[in-house]
Amino acid sequence: MPKIVDVEARRREIVFALWAVIHERGIEGVTYQAVAAEAGVSVGRVQHYFASREELVRAGAEAIVAFSESAFRDHSADLPPREALAALLTAPLPRTPTFRLGAAVWHAYLTRAMVDEGIAAVVRGAVAGTVDEVARLLAAAGAPGDAGDRGAAALHLVALSDGLTQRVLLGVAEPEAADALLRAQVDAVLDSPPAR
Amino acid sequence: MPKIVDVEARRREIVFALWAVIHERGIEGVTYQAVAAEAGVSVGRVQHYFASREELVRAGAEAIVAFSESAFRDHSADLPPREALAALLTAPLPRTPTFRLGAAVWHAYLTRAMVDEGIAAVVRGAVAGTVDEVARLLAAAGAPGDAGDRGAAALHLVALSDGLTQRVLLGVAEPEAADALLRAQVDAVLDSPPAR
Repeated sequence: MPKIVDVEARRREIVFALWAVIHERGIEGVTYQAVAAEAGVSVGRVQHYFASREELVRAGAEAIVAFSESAFRDHSADLPPREALAALLTAPLPRTPTFRLGAAVWHAYLTRAMVDEGIAAVVRGAVAGTVDEVARLLAAAGAPGDAGDRGAAALHLVALSDGLTQRVLLGVAEPEAADALLRAQVDAVLDSPPAR
Repeated sequence: MPKIVDVEARRREIVFALWAVIHERGIEGVTYQAVAAEAGVSVGRVQHYFASREELVRAGAEAIVAFSESAFRDHSADLPPREALAALLTAPLPRTPTFRLGAAVWHAYLTRAMVDEGIAAVVRGAVAGTVDEVARLLAAAGAPGDAGDRGAAALHLVALSDGLTQRVLLGVAEPEAADALLRAQVDAVLDSPPAR
């Protein structure tokens, strides 16, 4: 069905242009005109695929979430839980220029979510889901303690991953040091003696 | 010297208006006109105190850094190192609406610093300084290990504080849970057996 492929490819091309505009001007700088110019298409084409500016901005966040989830699934499918956990937590660390751009755009969404309820709805689902997935992997890897302990350990690990990713993006931490700290914390949680 | 006091008060009033504009429209949305309207003063007055838009935006970041540092000094002056450490790490957690606004504006600066070298210069100094201060307090509190161990532990603690603060701002973590996790990690570092 070539027509569907075409629609998806055209939407994707517009979303890539949207990310570039957000990276350069922030989410507040997104207009149909700027995205159309960046994509090299007409404003009418952008409006055809995205009925409002809000829908376009939201689609950009949803595409990052979908991209991250599929990248994680591809990389962790055959890994044992401890390694899948380390892969999930270290995946957001930017190691290439393209990845840095994606991570910086995601941070723009996180910041905008603090004051914009529409974006907050998309972002909250993604960030809450990551803690649930980490808690599930901790249980599968035999972490000591009960569900409450695993929930707290999962929040710790995900917040640590977020904070370290932010520092790597700011250029005040190296990805290798961040990677080592995250793996050490996974080991500390999984290899700690059971709570008394 | 009433004239100096006057200058400081007028600059401060403009910086408060700048923060409100950033909160609502992002850093990209900052214009002399928007800040003047928010402050209820003329555009000429804003230009008199801040010679360029870049200087105004940078002054807003510097004011947040100065405000945080003086708040920390006021609160921790007489505390023993372990408590000063907990106070420094838990201070960014937003617990009031005014504080949430300040923290969201700071996040806007952090995000912008990922693509804007001028803002990055201000922000990097502040975020690197926090890790140094935490490492210093860890040494004063008798943390086990050498300077390298304390540097890694400090990076872990500060990144955890940043990541948890972001989650509280997004409404996906409670400040009390974040506070408890940070204090538990301070204890884990200070009370861990010396490395073999």
